[in-house]
Amino acid sequence: MSTSLIILAAGQGTRMQSDTAKVLHQVAGAPLLAHAMKAAEAVEANNTVIVTGHHSAAVSAAALDLNPEAITVEQTEQLGTGHAVAQAAEALEDELGNVIVLFGDTPFISELTLHKMLEERAFHDVVVLGFEAADPGRYGRLVMQGKALERIVEYKDASEQERAITLCNSGVICASARLLFDLVAQLSNENASGEYYLTDIVALARERGLNATAVTCDEAETMGVNSRADLAQAEATFQAAARAEALADGVTLTAPETVFFAHDTVLGRDCIIEPNVVFGPGVTVETGATIRAFSHLEGCHVARGAVVGPYARLRPGAELQEDTRVGNFVEIKNAIIDEGAKVNHLSYIGDAHIGTQTNVGAGTITCNYDGVMKHHTEVGARAFIGSNTMLIAPVTVGDEAMTASGSIINQDVPDGALALARAKQVNKPGLARKLFDKLKAAKAAKAKKAE
Amino acid sequence: MSTSLIILAAGQGTRMQSDTAKVLHQVAGAPLLAHAMKAAEAVEANNTVIVTGHHSAAVSAAALDLNPEAITVEQTEQLGTGHAVAQAAEALEDELGNVIVLFGDTPFISELTLHKMLEERAFHDVVVLGFEAADPGRYGRLVMQGKALERIVEYKDASEQERAITLCNSGVICASARLLFDLVAQLSNENASGEYYLTDIVALARERGLNATAVTCDEAETMGVNSRADLAQAEATFQAAARAEALADGVTLTAPETVFFAHDTVLGRDCIIEPNVVFGPGVTVETGATIRAFSHLEGCHVARGAVVGPYARLRPGAELQEDTRVGNFVEIKNAIIDEGAKVNHLSYIGDAHIGTQTNVGAGTITCNYDGVMKHHTEVGARAFIGSNTMLIAPVTVGDEAMTASGSIINQDVPDGALALARAKQVNKPGLARKLFDKLKAAKAAKAKKAE
Amino acid sequence: MSTSLIILAAGQGTRMQSDTAKVLHQVAGAPLLAHAMKAAEAVEANNTVIVTGHHSAAVSAAALDLNPEAITVEQTEQLGTGHAVAQAAEALEDELGNVIVLFGDTPFISELTLHKMLEERAFHDVVVLGFEAADPGRYGRLVMQGKALERIVEYKDASEQERAITLCNSGVICASARLLFDLVAQLSNENASGEYYLTDIVALARERGLNATAVTCDEAETMGVNSRADLAQAEATFQAAARAEALADGVTLTAPETVFFAHDTVLGRDCIIEPNVVFGPGVTVETGATIRAFSHLEGCHVARGAVVGPYARLRPGAELQEDTRVGNFVEIKNAIIDEGAKVNHLSYIGDAHIGTQTNVGAGTITCNYDGVMKHHTEVGARAFIGSNTMLIAPVTVGDEAMTASGSIINQDVPDGALALARAKQVNKPGLARKLFDKLKAAKAAKAKKAE
Repeated sequence: MSTSLIILAAGQGTRMQSDTAKVLHQVAGAPLLAHAMKAAEAVEANNTVIVTGHHSAAVSAAALDLNPEAITVEQTEQLGTGHAVAQAAEALEDELGNVIVLFGDTPFISELTLHKMLEERAFHDVVVLGFEAADPGRYGRLVMQGKALERIVEYKDASEQERAITLCNSGVICASARLLFDLVAQLSNENASGEYYLTDIVALARERGLNATAVTCDEAETMGVNSRADLAQAEATFQAAARAEALADGVTLTAPETVFFAHDTVLGRDCIIEPNVVFGPGVTVETGATIRAFSHLEGCHVARGAVVGPYARLRPGAELQEDTRVGNFVEIKNAIIDEGAKVNHLSYIGDAHIGTQTNVGAGTITCNYDGVMKHHTEVGARAFIGSNTMLIAPVTVGDEAMTASGSIINQDVPDGALALARAKQVNKPGLARKLFDKLKAAKAAKAKKAE
Repeated sequence: MSTSLIILAAGQGTRMQSDTAKVLHQVAGAPLLAHAMKAAEAVEANNTVIVTGHHSAAVSAAALDLNPEAITVEQTEQLGTGHAVAQAAEALEDELGNVIVLFGDTPFISELTLHKMLEERAFHDVVVLGFEAADPGRYGRLVMQGKALERIVEYKDASEQERAITLCNSGVICASARLLFDLVAQLSNENASGEYYLTDIVALARERGLNATAVTCDEAETMGVNSRADLAQAEATFQAAARAEALADGVTLTAPETVFFAHDTVLGRDCIIEPNVVFGPGVTVETGATIRAFSHLEGCHVARGAVVGPYARLRPGAELQEDTRVGNFVEIKNAIIDEGAKVNHLSYIGDAHIGTQTNVGAGTITCNYDGVMKHHTEVGARAFIGSNTMLIAPVTVGDEAMTASGSIINQDVPDGALALARAKQVNKPGLARKLFDKLKAAKAAKAKKAE
Repeated sequence: MSTSLIILAAGQGTRMQSDTAKVLHQVAGAPLLAHAMKAAEAVEANNTVIVTGHHSAAVSAAALDLNPEAITVEQTEQLGTGHAVAQAAEALEDELGNVIVLFGDTPFISELTLHKMLEERAFHDVVVLGFEAADPGRYGRLVMQGKALERIVEYKDASEQERAITLCNSGVICASARLLFDLVAQLSNENASGEYYLTDIVALARERGLNATAVTCDEAETMGVNSRADLAQAEATFQAAARAEALADGVTLTAPETVFFAHDTVLGRDCIIEPNVVFGPGVTVETGATIRAFSHLEGCHVARGAVVGPYARLRPGAELQEDTRVGNFVEIKNAIIDEGAKVNHLSYIGDAHIGTQTNVGAGTITCNYDGVMKHHTEVGARAFIGSNTMLIAPVTVGDEAMTASGSIINQDVPDGALALARAKQVNKPGLARKLFDKLKAAKAAKAKKAE
């Protein structure tokens, strides 16, 4: 049976104190919404409907950017979760399968949990996701009778006996699309807040003689983000899991607490990651590569045996082949560094291809930008780029070619040729001493004048 | 009624294992003494008297540097806290208001606590600051009778019943100046240590039929620093509070535990601070600016929409206007970067003004120092500074001017002009191969010789 | 009496998920094996025998690299700890003293513990190292009768009463060489695993009427590494101890949890270490030096009063004399920086000597590598190296000499001389504007073409 998702993403998130929509704040380099939308892959969703509200345009755009086939509907007035779900009714009117209702600010519901809910759906009309709360506090409680979910009781309406229940309501719910929208249409807002609560569909279903149950997950999965402190906590939760997974997979993290992963970081076995490394999105590091301290990687690929850093800044499009060496205040962007090549000091390599075994000297810069457009630099194999060479793109340096230190290269250099562009050195005897004396006298005069 | 402060800062701090005065060790970029002296603003102090002793000259100088109107008095012999307070008697002989006695190594007494003490002073002759200790250990105990402070009993003199008391003495005390010095003059040093204890004034006051009380604060406020481990703990306490405050104010801290604030850091709402950022003193970051990983900021201002880092080093006097971009191994010192300007790679900009929308190429250096004096560099708006341009200050580059990559600019460049200073490139066919062969032969010969 | 060590290092370490031998994984910049082998110094070992197995060649090589007098023997089949010890019998056949059996994956057994074991050996035939386990779990239990070790019982064979014992077996054992090998030769592998257990020698000794005892140490000392998570935990344990020791010795660590030490880091009193500093092996920092944030030091020496960083990369052979300043994206390798000299911005100084009080300008590079060999740069005292100077080694710049910014120096510069190698600046009026217009037109044409 097919599955569709409704992701509620209309809330204002006042406690975030932000001009950005709450669900667009990031964890592990991706917006909260992206984490929630990953559920679509997990259940091979037929449709994903995002209900937007506050910051509707920005949230819709982000949702479509993440999944061009997502459907976004706007809830123009925020009248409660039930009302929000109702906005998706039209979009899913032909849907004959199940619907799971998720929250855009709840990033960690696992694939396993979603599958457990769908499995229970085969036996129950409504399936609610619950969790055993360490501190149940003011959460709604799930009143069970064996496997049957009798009802959901809000904390403020709960008896003392009900408050003793520790199985709490996450708000995530699953039912067939037909039943869900049928029940939602029946919801009333005659309560203290004047809102339509999605949760109330359990009582409505029970009144019809339908059955409900609860599936439980770890409390951490149901964590919602309502403040910057929550956001930091969600990040920490993500990072702790990612670090543990890397260790289990045979990656050395010298100081796991100082390494930050993105949602999609891939590290091969026997990689060594030193302290203080930050991975932005889109990084793959192959088996046996070493990422040294104070390195920052985004959108790049590092092959086996490469040594990156310390102080390597790899930006999108950096492609480091096997046994390359890049580090010590070096930035690489949109450039392929072929096998065995080295860019070891204070260099900027952008929009370039550096050939195999080539050595790029300290202070080398690919001058890829002319103020209007970006241009490509091509350097051949086994070449030697002297320190502080300016490669004025577009330009090509051939195989086994050499550039003299400090050269500005704006014409192609043939294979095996030496290029140089250099003023002749002149030594002026005694002039440094004279200059120092003159400068000191000027300073003294200035100081005297200032008195 | 006016208030004066006496801050005791004479101690040796043996356990610090340091040649620096204990109160000059820093927390959050300011000496402990500065944290204690902040109380002066909190209570709008009439006078602040610093009692110095060990390292008297250095502590006095620091105190006067922090508050030129502070009064420093030297306690030449360290004969106890009571004796230390007595040193301030002459300086405050005309003072008719209250005095609060604080400690230079106790940085966290809050404004609220000080105000609570002053309020109680209206009703009691002597007000002592106490705290409920999680582990009372060997602290002195405050023996209360209702609101009345009966006496302070040292741990070693306490009965079993008194040792069961968890309300402990912080040492901070408040009384009218007249009474304080009157009581202090009466103190005796006939005790095991042979010292004059300030604490004993409570008993003296009670003997005179005067009344005393205790105000309580959180134990963390009374934390004193006696070792490097304490200093690190004080720093951690400060940072935890500063991080929580930033989060509450609507700042995103991806990994709060990796961000270090100074005592005066100001961050606007919706700033995003990535992992591993260090703020030195004097930094203001406006709303919506982003500080990326591995950045270090001191004495600078970052305007809205600016993106700083990764690897940005902003030093005192760096002024980044709106929507500027600075990062990737770039250092800025005493320089204004106008709106929309970019300094994106491996550059040093010092003593300079970069105009709006100007692009500063990789490897650019303002050569601001001639070995004796510093000079200014002026770059206009919408200019294009080619990579590795050396700007030999004093020098001016006009609006919409351009410098060719690798140019050494020691004359002014008019608006709209292109400046270049470049040797012509020469390609020597085959010479690189010959050179490689020669060098390899030389190496082989050397290796052979070494055998 | 002499002491020998047998270090068992034959295990596969399957849970490490690694192609590297387990004992070669590093903690604090040294392989686990090195930490275990430190025991040899602690007991002034006569012989150290390393029993290798998996990755035998690599482990042997590492052992000999750490101690050229170590003896390595290979256990070709892994038939248990008793069998492993037996492999050392031949190597130690003339040994008349004691033997301590240690484990290559157990890095923290202290010198004190080893001495306590040797002391007890004077009174007991076999001495076993035990620990009071917080959670005894499935460890073997030491069954004591007063000071006498009755027997060691494996968890699975233990009675309920025995399982209640919290004194557990570390596996470390001490006996005379003669007795040890005699007992080991008697071991049987008739047990569930079919292995020869070293532990069984206690029972064999007791059968012979010999006596045994246990020495206890802190549980943390006996920590073994079996997974990457264990490795990270061992690193954390090491770092926590090293940080506490530095604080106790009078070093300021602003944020101790962000500073990483190597096994041999030496810091003088009153050093200040800012957040995010990484020490690789071989670093000594003298009294009163400051290591600022984001610095990375390996194999170097920093003298008193020096200020290093932020963003200093000191590599092996960097020798910073008193009151030097190095930082802000500067890398130093195999170079002596004399007293008071400064290398403050974006420079690479390798294979060089910089004289006292000399100022090295931003962007300076010692071009030490010609593609085949490394060469030396010598700069005199009180010299001024202009920004972006390329020093083409081998080259010498004299005392009080000066180089102009942007100069490529490939000839020696005499004392007091000014060297310059610079193309003359030419300003082309209006050309920048024309170029911008042309480039924009080209871009527009390209965009149009792409449509």
